[in-house]
Amino acid sequence: MTQVTDRLSASPTTPTSPAPASTAATKTAQIDVAWLGEYLLGTWAAERKQSRALMARPEFHRIDGLTLDEHRERVFGQLKLLVGDGAVHRAFPTSLGGANNHGGNVAAFEEIVTADPSLQIKSGVQWGLFGAAVLHLGTKLHHEKWLPGIMSLEIPGAFAMTETGHGSDVASIATTATFDPKTDEFVITTPFRAAYKDYLGNAAVHGRAAVVFAQLITHGVNHGVHALYLPIRDDSGLLPGIGSEDDGLKGGLNGLDNGRLFFDHVRVPRTNLLNRYGDVNEHGEYTSPIESPGRRFFTMLGTLVQGRVSLDGAAVIASKLALTIALIYGSERRQFTASSATDEEVILDYQRHQRRLLPRLAETYAMSFAHEKFLSTFDGVFSGAHDTDDDRQDLETLAAALKPLSTWNALAILQEAREACGGQGFLMENRLTQLRADLDVYATFEGDNNVLLQLVAKRLLTDYSRTFAKADAGAMAHYAAELVGDVAVNRTGLRRLAQNVVDFGSTARSIGYVRDTASQRQLLTDRVQTMVAEVAGKLRPASKLARAGAAALFNRHQNLLIQTAQAHGELLQWEAFTDALEGVQDDQTRQVMTWLRDLFGFTLIERNLAWYLMNGRLSANRAQAITDYIDDRLLPRLRPQVLDLVAAFGLTAEHVRAPIATGIERVRQNEARDYYENLRASGKLPIEEKDLKAKKR
Amino acid sequence: MTQVTDRLSASPTTPTSPAPASTAATKTAQIDVAWLGEYLLGTWAAERKQSRALMARPEFHRIDGLTLDEHRERVFGQLKLLVGDGAVHRAFPTSLGGANNHGGNVAAFEEIVTADPSLQIKSGVQWGLFGAAVLHLGTKLHHEKWLPGIMSLEIPGAFAMTETGHGSDVASIATTATFDPKTDEFVITTPFRAAYKDYLGNAAVHGRAAVVFAQLITHGVNHGVHALYLPIRDDSGLLPGIGSEDDGLKGGLNGLDNGRLFFDHVRVPRTNLLNRYGDVNEHGEYTSPIESPGRRFFTMLGTLVQGRVSLDGAAVIASKLALTIALIYGSERRQFTASSATDEEVILDYQRHQRRLLPRLAETYAMSFAHEKFLSTFDGVFSGAHDTDDDRQDLETLAAALKPLSTWNALAILQEAREACGGQGFLMENRLTQLRADLDVYATFEGDNNVLLQLVAKRLLTDYSRTFAKADAGAMAHYAAELVGDVAVNRTGLRRLAQNVVDFGSTARSIGYVRDTASQRQLLTDRVQTMVAEVAGKLRPASKLARAGAAALFNRHQNLLIQTAQAHGELLQWEAFTDALEGVQDDQTRQVMTWLRDLFGFTLIERNLAWYLMNGRLSANRAQAITDYIDDRLLPRLRPQVLDLVAAFGLTAEHVRAPIATGIERVRQNEARDYYENLRASGKLPIEEKDLKAKKR
Repeated sequence: MTQVTDRLSASPTTPTSPAPASTAATKTAQIDVAWLGEYLLGTWAAERKQSRALMARPEFHRIDGLTLDEHRERVFGQLKLLVGDGAVHRAFPTSLGGANNHGGNVAAFEEIVTADPSLQIKSGVQWGLFGAAVLHLGTKLHHEKWLPGIMSLEIPGAFAMTETGHGSDVASIATTATFDPKTDEFVITTPFRAAYKDYLGNAAVHGRAAVVFAQLITHGVNHGVHALYLPIRDDSGLLPGIGSEDDGLKGGLNGLDNGRLFFDHVRVPRTNLLNRYGDVNEHGEYTSPIESPGRRFFTMLGTLVQGRVSLDGAAVIASKLALTIALIYGSERRQFTASSATDEEVILDYQRHQRRLLPRLAETYAMSFAHEKFLSTFDGVFSGAHDTDDDRQDLETLAAALKPLSTWNALAILQEAREACGGQGFLMENRLTQLRADLDVYATFEGDNNVLLQLVAKRLLTDYSRTFAKADAGAMAHYAAELVGDVAVNRTGLRRLAQNVVDFGSTARSIGYVRDTASQRQLLTDRVQTMVAEVAGKLRPASKLARAGAAALFNRHQNLLIQTAQAHGELLQWEAFTDALEGVQDDQTRQVMTWLRDLFGFTLIERNLAWYLMNGRLSANRAQAITDYIDDRLLPRLRPQVLDLVAAFGLTAEHVRAPIATGIERVRQNEARDYYENLRASGKLPIEEKDLKAKKR
Repeated sequence: MTQVTDRLSASPTTPTSPAPASTAATKTAQIDVAWLGEYLLGTWAAERKQSRALMARPEFHRIDGLTLDEHRERVFGQLKLLVGDGAVHRAFPTSLGGANNHGGNVAAFEEIVTADPSLQIKSGVQWGLFGAAVLHLGTKLHHEKWLPGIMSLEIPGAFAMTETGHGSDVASIATTATFDPKTDEFVITTPFRAAYKDYLGNAAVHGRAAVVFAQLITHGVNHGVHALYLPIRDDSGLLPGIGSEDDGLKGGLNGLDNGRLFFDHVRVPRTNLLNRYGDVNEHGEYTSPIESPGRRFFTMLGTLVQGRVSLDGAAVIASKLALTIALIYGSERRQFTASSATDEEVILDYQRHQRRLLPRLAETYAMSFAHEKFLSTFDGVFSGAHDTDDDRQDLETLAAALKPLSTWNALAILQEAREACGGQGFLMENRLTQLRADLDVYATFEGDNNVLLQLVAKRLLTDYSRTFAKADAGAMAHYAAELVGDVAVNRTGLRRLAQNVVDFGSTARSIGYVRDTASQRQLLTDRVQTMVAEVAGKLRPASKLARAGAAALFNRHQNLLIQTAQAHGELLQWEAFTDALEGVQDDQTRQVMTWLRDLFGFTLIERNLAWYLMNGRLSANRAQAITDYIDDRLLPRLRPQVLDLVAAFGLTAEHVRAPIATGIERVRQNEARDYYENLRASGKLPIEEKDLKAKKR
């Protein structure tokens, strides 16, 4: 009855090397696991490895069962350790000891999720939101005055944007900052309960300051949402005029001291206005480098997009962790053994188990490659390499498309993994339930997923209407090509698609027509394009309606709009996976990765099969062929590759920390089998009643 | 900034009476809420009301943030309170102070979930599993000796069936009970680590005894799984030979002391064998009233079906609770107000919000009515009124079909409700995250959902193959009629369906053909029947294959089998809802309930639209009409009914206990609106920068 944990290596830099796959399945290709692992780490591999090495250390790991206060204090202490290890300053200016490395900073930050999502989010609040607001919305004075203390954690701070009454609708916040020329101060006021700042990390206990978002009012004019730096606590507690409430226990992330802040005519010097995008002089005169209040607002908020970038990345890593656990366990666990005692099947040999987990594995790879592109785009904007208005808008749209998909997928993957591990999955030591609880809120914070997808849909519609001011086939093809960011979908291709609709509707049952990359791309691209055109057509009368009527029309198609945005996001994921195949040199690795990409593409098509059938893109027989191809070809081919595909995630024992992913189940199963074999060999195995009866007959 | 909780009534017997629905939507029918509330309570309304009155008391309510030990002790104390209140003895024999009331017992037990799911499951372990095993598997001697102590909680006990190595595969457990004729005792042994009894409530701390399931071996013959009564602890701790480990923290249900038990040659008197279905005399001779070991095993396990019944019922109540919270909040919360300040929309007026929650409301009604039928069937068997072998098998199949659907649905509903409440939904005080965490394991315990659905599929196939030994159209119609438990689907109807496939494929776009009950039934029934026939055809070669080959063939279609069982379960839910409509006398109530049933039926069809299209049951235009009818007719009609439909669930403030469902949000919104109105009236509202610019132009 020994319990061993010899499966995962003890070194944080060596990837897991699981036992070979079930002998039942035939392995027809061999992945280069080490190479693939590096490839997955992407552009900021070095930063990711540094962060993983750090997160392998026990002092960063979540301890289950702590009280709320203990957990909060532990995480706060971990933040100090991060400072000591120089782990959190990469995005700050070199002049202040940072590295001006935006992509690397977010990459390293994402990896914290394996230690404790509370630690990830608390450090995100401190340096990614509070600190980043001072950095991006403030100017030299603010940087010099406050960034050193923020970087060193001398000034823990809250990012006071969200209000109880307004979650994702930041433009409508009700807190006011009114300029008083008599004292050269802003007066910050919470006018009513719904305007309490809410859900703010660091607000309940640790915060010494806050960046407060408020409607900036001077000379009776409201210039919209601006940010001000506001001290809130000193050693003796809350400062005069500042109120705070504790949000208390949450569904997860309880290492964060989320709370509320409210202000009773609190005065700050005029220069506490973070004035990069809007300033007030001593006479109360407002100026801004951005003329349009709307564009100014979105520019200010756009500087904080890294929250969405890092949630997307953390969701990918959590998904990798979940699948590592469930797939190792599924490769060892035996149940309902159908064949003989000496040739037992593991649960991952069951079709249903494969159906539950393998498409999720493919999805996780797609999410991982899509995130890498997203992170590069982000780095391009923030490093200044590609920082036009269009670049920033594209980044916003990418964030709004990918963050909802990956955070929802992560929850679904964590849940499927938990159920796939049965009772073991429900034990907190095996991490799946706690990770799911912590990541739950990722779906609604940093922009509610449904709200973000509407932004994507609106952008798609805007692009569409611009392109089709004078609609012709060429414009349509160009639009579609831009949509997928790939010129390979050229006019010819799309024209052929249109001509082939009849052919697609034929009854010839074959998968050949869709197995290749170009056909998958056509099916997925065509869907997005057709949905955009459809919804654009439905919304066309809106331009002739009054505001309320237009809103009602929009609302009548809101669900379709969001589905369209989802389809667009899925296409982006598929394109990222497909692009990633180009970089794979090794033939066998590319073969397996292509199967995995196909599984992802076919799963997307299968999920939306009704659309393809209704719109004449697939005949019934060809639709059936998609499902059959997944079941009869892709799952059996990928089954023997599963442990290698998981090993390439490179998560070590210190990151996984789930007893069921240590080989413990295999040891238990082997012990049981040996026991029966010995009993049988010694002639002491009791005869079964039914065999006895059969013998007597 | 006042916070009030005046929305929900303070009395546990008065249902909630929410404010009128949004004035934006026109209410075209008025539900009789009081009547519908009684109707939903069903046959055991009195027991449900008693239990609800009890669960309204604060001493039964979960307190968030307790430590593991504190929560366990609190729940154990609550169990004693339940005994004092006579709340848990209904199912026991009248001779021992019970009421022999099986349906009423389970109904009352289910209602405990509103107080704390840990309390529900812990009392389920004590009286529904441990006690029920002694009752149903033991005989007079055992009843007299142990039931009084079990009923009074003098003997807290564990139900030691599951082993670490074998979850849902009970027949393969490895613990042995070997008869020793020399001492007239059984020797209970755990042969290896995988045979530890695991996940047992009461095992870690409170249990004094256990019903242990073990392979019964006597004279070298293994007679299969039997249950024995085994003392495990006294005042000084574990008894000799008994080992125990604590399962520790779990994803939820932490008020339960789940743990492991293992046995090192522990001896119990021969008469501790619970011998109703199998006995051993002093010579070690085995006898059983049931000849076949397989049937004997399933009969023994069948006596414990009430676990599945009560999980199904608890899932329904948790769903009602979640929707009560999310729909009240959604009716008050305002965001992104599209129209003027004085005519703000609440988030439930958004189509997407309706799409997320209203089909779930319809589903919850369907689950509720289906559960009522299930509970009646259970009561029929256990009261002895309808207790043939066939009755028991039908009950098993019903349990295996409904428990997976309702427990999965409850998780999806809790999650959708949580996300629909945004940040508020993530606060533990609003209950959605904790309920979800607690109910998570419902999907895999008392039979893993995927395993249960396979049992259903096998039963469907067995019935099918019996019916079609000599297949003809009459047999097929009879089979289908039996399948749905409704003779209204008669031969003519089914024949007509077959003839109408061509018509269904026509392009006439209309919803008329499917809006009526008979057409919905045909579409849903036809799908189940066709899927069963399809999978039967695919599995036909299995009879000619060796065991391993047959298992492989079965495995190749495992996913389809499970989908077939799901379709069957959904049909049962739809039939239960449709039957329930018959009992509604009031015209307007019946009108609203019919819309709700239609929404449920159409949602089922929409979810499986690809199947209907691929199998020629719906044309593309008619498929689109399903979606349009949901969006354009059913959701707008049901929107004004939502608060009444939720009020009929009859959950009071004491059961709901979520601040956001108290009217607090409406108060906050009104305060904000009044503030702006006063400011505007007094001329002090700052002018918006963009309005100023427009003026200057």
